[in-house]
Amino acid sequence: MKQIRVGLIGTGYIGRCHAIAYAQAPTVFPLEAELVLEYLAEITPELAAQKAKEFRFNRSTGNWLDVVQDPNVDVVDICTPNFLHKEIALAAIAHGKHVYSEKPLALTAQEAKEMYNAAKQAGVKTLVGFNYIKNPTTQLAREIIEKGEIGEIVHFYGTHNEDYLADPNTPLDWHCIREKAGLGALGDLGAHIVQMSQYLVGSYIQKVIGDMETVIKTRPNPKNIAEQLAVENEDQATALVRFANGCMGTIETSRIACGYKMGLSYVIIGTKGTISYTQERMAELKVYYHGDDPSRQGFKTILIGPLHPDYKNFCISAGHGIGFNDQKTVEIRDLVNRLAKNQDMYPDFEEGYKVSRILDAITLSCEQERWVNVEEI
Amino acid sequence: MKQIRVGLIGTGYIGRCHAIAYAQAPTVFPLEAELVLEYLAEITPELAAQKAKEFRFNRSTGNWLDVVQDPNVDVVDICTPNFLHKEIALAAIAHGKHVYSEKPLALTAQEAKEMYNAAKQAGVKTLVGFNYIKNPTTQLAREIIEKGEIGEIVHFYGTHNEDYLADPNTPLDWHCIREKAGLGALGDLGAHIVQMSQYLVGSYIQKVIGDMETVIKTRPNPKNIAEQLAVENEDQATALVRFANGCMGTIETSRIACGYKMGLSYVIIGTKGTISYTQERMAELKVYYHGDDPSRQGFKTILIGPLHPDYKNFCISAGHGIGFNDQKTVEIRDLVNRLAKNQDMYPDFEEGYKVSRILDAITLSCEQERWVNVEEI
Amino acid sequence: MKQIRVGLIGTGYIGRCHAIAYAQAPTVFPLEAELVLEYLAEITPELAAQKAKEFRFNRSTGNWLDVVQDPNVDVVDICTPNFLHKEIALAAIAHGKHVYSEKPLALTAQEAKEMYNAAKQAGVKTLVGFNYIKNPTTQLAREIIEKGEIGEIVHFYGTHNEDYLADPNTPLDWHCIREKAGLGALGDLGAHIVQMSQYLVGSYIQKVIGDMETVIKTRPNPKNIAEQLAVENEDQATALVRFANGCMGTIETSRIACGYKMGLSYVIIGTKGTISYTQERMAELKVYYHGDDPSRQGFKTILIGPLHPDYKNFCISAGHGIGFNDQKTVEIRDLVNRLAKNQDMYPDFEEGYKVSRILDAITLSCEQERWVNVEEI
Amino acid sequence: MKQIRVGLIGTGYIGRCHAIAYAQAPTVFPLEAELVLEYLAEITPELAAQKAKEFRFNRSTGNWLDVVQDPNVDVVDICTPNFLHKEIALAAIAHGKHVYSEKPLALTAQEAKEMYNAAKQAGVKTLVGFNYIKNPTTQLAREIIEKGEIGEIVHFYGTHNEDYLADPNTPLDWHCIREKAGLGALGDLGAHIVQMSQYLVGSYIQKVIGDMETVIKTRPNPKNIAEQLAVENEDQATALVRFANGCMGTIETSRIACGYKMGLSYVIIGTKGTISYTQERMAELKVYYHGDDPSRQGFKTILIGPLHPDYKNFCISAGHGIGFNDQKTVEIRDLVNRLAKNQDMYPDFEEGYKVSRILDAITLSCEQERWVNVEEI
Repeated sequence: MKQIRVGLIGTGYIGRCHAIAYAQAPTVFPLEAELVLEYLAEITPELAAQKAKEFRFNRSTGNWLDVVQDPNVDVVDICTPNFLHKEIALAAIAHGKHVYSEKPLALTAQEAKEMYNAAKQAGVKTLVGFNYIKNPTTQLAREIIEKGEIGEIVHFYGTHNEDYLADPNTPLDWHCIREKAGLGALGDLGAHIVQMSQYLVGSYIQKVIGDMETVIKTRPNPKNIAEQLAVENEDQATALVRFANGCMGTIETSRIACGYKMGLSYVIIGTKGTISYTQERMAELKVYYHGDDPSRQGFKTILIGPLHPDYKNFCISAGHGIGFNDQKTVEIRDLVNRLAKNQDMYPDFEEGYKVSRILDAITLSCEQERWVNVEEI
Repeated sequence: MKQIRVGLIGTGYIGRCHAIAYAQAPTVFPLEAELVLEYLAEITPELAAQKAKEFRFNRSTGNWLDVVQDPNVDVVDICTPNFLHKEIALAAIAHGKHVYSEKPLALTAQEAKEMYNAAKQAGVKTLVGFNYIKNPTTQLAREIIEKGEIGEIVHFYGTHNEDYLADPNTPLDWHCIREKAGLGALGDLGAHIVQMSQYLVGSYIQKVIGDMETVIKTRPNPKNIAEQLAVENEDQATALVRFANGCMGTIETSRIACGYKMGLSYVIIGTKGTISYTQERMAELKVYYHGDDPSRQGFKTILIGPLHPDYKNFCISAGHGIGFNDQKTVEIRDLVNRLAKNQDMYPDFEEGYKVSRILDAITLSCEQERWVNVEEI
Repeated sequence: MKQIRVGLIGTGYIGRCHAIAYAQAPTVFPLEAELVLEYLAEITPELAAQKAKEFRFNRSTGNWLDVVQDPNVDVVDICTPNFLHKEIALAAIAHGKHVYSEKPLALTAQEAKEMYNAAKQAGVKTLVGFNYIKNPTTQLAREIIEKGEIGEIVHFYGTHNEDYLADPNTPLDWHCIREKAGLGALGDLGAHIVQMSQYLVGSYIQKVIGDMETVIKTRPNPKNIAEQLAVENEDQATALVRFANGCMGTIETSRIACGYKMGLSYVIIGTKGTISYTQERMAELKVYYHGDDPSRQGFKTILIGPLHPDYKNFCISAGHGIGFNDQKTVEIRDLVNRLAKNQDMYPDFEEGYKVSRILDAITLSCEQERWVNVEEI
Repeated sequence: MKQIRVGLIGTGYIGRCHAIAYAQAPTVFPLEAELVLEYLAEITPELAAQKAKEFRFNRSTGNWLDVVQDPNVDVVDICTPNFLHKEIALAAIAHGKHVYSEKPLALTAQEAKEMYNAAKQAGVKTLVGFNYIKNPTTQLAREIIEKGEIGEIVHFYGTHNEDYLADPNTPLDWHCIREKAGLGALGDLGAHIVQMSQYLVGSYIQKVIGDMETVIKTRPNPKNIAEQLAVENEDQATALVRFANGCMGTIETSRIACGYKMGLSYVIIGTKGTISYTQERMAELKVYYHGDDPSRQGFKTILIGPLHPDYKNFCISAGHGIGFNDQKTVEIRDLVNRLAKNQDMYPDFEEGYKVSRILDAITLSCEQERWVNVEEI
């Protein structure tokens, strides 16, 4: 059996999620290659060694360059802060590695384009960690739409709201610094709902007009709480969008939306029905069919189950629930099985670039207070 | 005891709602004047007579002019289709009557302005039927906001979605004809959420950028189903808005939003908490306080009860529920008690005009694909 | 047109609800007789006069005997505390009046039987105020069951939980005194869900075994807070029941169930589907059809609308909501229209007696710790 | 580092769940011993070999006796159908192995007692797979109760409803045969909610009275669909219970409850508040505090997060969700870490026996139609 040997760079929040998914994926899914947790990099050799033990990787290093150069690594998995994505990805590509990067792919569309082009020229496979579309429930939403069950899509409303920076006393971290994170809520959270909107509507966003605001203008310096530092990117953003197929859309995102812990949600209105979803109840989908007997119309709450995409590998009974790491496990299954067969993955760097372009178009539309065609970027 | 003698013009959908509210108001609330159901007009004397009996009015006529001229009428209540509001209101004002008009006040801001100016010059009192803000639950939302419980408001998301025209086989009616209805979903439904947004945020909308679409472009001629007639106004509209206080907002409205029967809803995000509401569950409000013990944070579902505005007059036990006509009953209470004391009412023609101006600004922003300052209208 | 002249006795909590329903009923529904609010009794002439004005009754008295004897009263409406129901009803019956009594019909099944027999012998019509079954939503539940849409009913779970006595510092009132109220939670709240269970299952309860507890054993004397008085009846009760058709059931009731303001709810499981409802969301019904496409199964939330029983008289648009007093308005419609045509009403004193018998059977089953056949009572 | 070497017997529904939990546990939690997946038994060597590969076990066998006798196995994990639990457990104990058994522990309380006594005498550690109490959300419920936040518990309502046998055309399987499964819904599902009730109330059930029914009396023979075979145990059961501390309770369970896919739910009423939960939304808990400002009372929906028990090991952000296998992963953590330190586990065979005793008491109470003290069994 072929092997897929992973080199993981970064072990924080999302790196840990990858590690759990790597751990369970081979038991949950029939994989078409042997998944080898080969090499792990962190900022010091000590931390790397500790995390390699915790995540059950074979080897570790304090220098990520070791990973991208290692002959026993097939795919480089980038879980670092955003500003490092580009440099690492380009280095990995230069060494002929496949690249699996967390989102947002880069700080700007320009950077993302470079990465996409480099991968294309090198002929390596790429995958971007937009894991929410791997959730069986959202896959079900797409299946319902693709089958035409709710007719032609005429309106998409999507949010990704969280409240991790709602407290003005939370010190400034890298998310708030432009050269580390690029955009604020729009890049960190909005990227997910923008990408998902296209996946679900089945068409690309063509033009946008947005609005944004840095509500909490300064935050304590984490090294000196008495000092206030400027927050350099937006806390919240909204946009009207038009998809290529004419569908109207609204996107909202915030990192200071009190009460929303995982407020990725969508309402998709078609000519024959409507789908409604929130990631905070990630195992249920609400669907309304306008063609039902008029006296028995209503939103139906479907609990995700074995008749829906990818769920039965976790449990063969409906309604028993799936968790955050399970959707990443589906993503890992895609990674391994696609690479095993030398197939393209989805969403790849091209998709990551297209999302970045939309985010930049929204930003430009805010600065210039006008509609922006995505092609302008 | 003083009398307030009502002349009702129009007895369709909303006229019937007024009639029920008139019937129960004197029992539900302590009124400061005797409410007299004096005169009723419909398009024929026969229909008027029948409705007067059904709604328990003293007299009836087939000519609305009789009502506005009648010396025994103190206030003219206009429940006709939109295109008649202006003519009737101006006639009533000319006869020195107070005017209580359904929304939208007029087909355009220009018309609304005329009406507002006429009333101001004549010194009569006015009221516009934005009844959803009279719902005790939404009054509670405002109370929570005014007390600062959720801090400074930084984002307002509001919808008014229904699906009464979702079926393309529904024949064309006056709602779809520009000279009868003016705007489509935006005028019929959007007016409510626009007005409510300002009531709740506590600030006026200053600039807007919208998008709209007539999704179902033709409908059967009601007189000849085989023939298709053009739909002349929008089925759905969206807008980004900025309030005078800097708060960002998003407004959505549709009359083809499958599954939404009374989808007026709002999410109001403040710096210290969030409020969430849908009119389909009109007796409950969800509130989140970010200051709660972090391990016990969550949206709280408050059932409307006697400790909240105006509820105890309907029932002294919490959670027993209020209905659609009950909020109109609160409005009638305001009408009678304010007129009894010769006080201004809210929302009046000035508010109705300001709402029309925003709707027109959204329309202009759609046509010209740019942000529009409401003052431009 | 025939007249139905009402004599109302008692104007507290539920009397006020009746008054609001009387006020709106003739506008909401086409009534087949003229409803005349003729006579009102309270404990003093002054209070009676004040309430007659407030509720718009023609005449008032400080002595309820005046009402039952009055030749211009057709139906006596009893809204007094429970312990007076029997005496007033028997007096009214003796004077040939129809009787409309609030629930529970009497303090014991024995008393209820006397009342039922007296009415039967006198040939007068009776109605008991089990108003929750008049809610269009619960009528819809019954319609779904009667049409066989969820198959044969195999399990009924019903609660009526409230928390009006949850606080141990709430002083003792008549609800807690056996000779004033009879039973505690079981009589006040449980009566509703017991009656409703039979209405919905379509079969009578045949045997029961219960459990009950007075959790808060003493309460402050309202006249001397420092003193504690014994609570004489149960705060909470539960029972297993079997219906005549073999259906199993569970009944729960409490007046100290923290958080439940109107916690009347039911889950009805049939061989082909399930219905779920709570009165706190009185305008929506959840229905599950097991015959749906297995990959699209789920509970559907039906918003009450004009295609369902009795709703369209309140509003012709679905989902606009109904309130607590609206279900009583349906009851008043039944009262007037049935009496106008000299027809029996439902639920009548026979039904009230049958419910009392079940409550007594549950009580006996608690005392003797055994299953009790309802026929034993 | 010490090793804990597992021998797994049975790889069906729940065996697969164990395998996924074994796979992720060492990455999710810091384990205090090395978890070794040593030996796996299935009914044929071929199936065993296939499953060992799939579940990543070192060795496999077609004879479970090999596992219980193997010197390199520390703990035997029993995931077979119920009727084999006893024989395997006793054999494992006889060989000095620790035993981790799925629930229900045995077909009868008598059998469970034998198993418990054998383990006690042998001094081996035991664990029973009541995994729903390992869910962080239910652990949070217990924490809230233990801290006294909702006062003294006065009522427990618990269900475990599913609909896996709702369709009468589903052929008979081992769940319906007394000598294979013992009890029906009560043993398969009811065992969970009975065990959980004691965990949450913090007191043991002392007396019970139940009711049960085999609704679908025959089912097709799986080997010959035309033939109907008798269903030998109950489809649904209910019981009233009293806990040692005086708390009242109601238990309901069904395997034919249309629409319930994972309908394990509870409502726990205390003197100061209430908790409400359903496993179908396994990542949220509803809590009501009666001490809140009366005008701001309501059920609060708490999304499970890093401040609650065991969640942060899965994800450090609140509200991101946990799945079915995650609660089993917590159980595996307990297994490994307790055995590593030679500590007792919970819930152990004593608890499993106590639960079986209650199930038998309910069964006896149904047969004899009387209250049964659990001590009678």
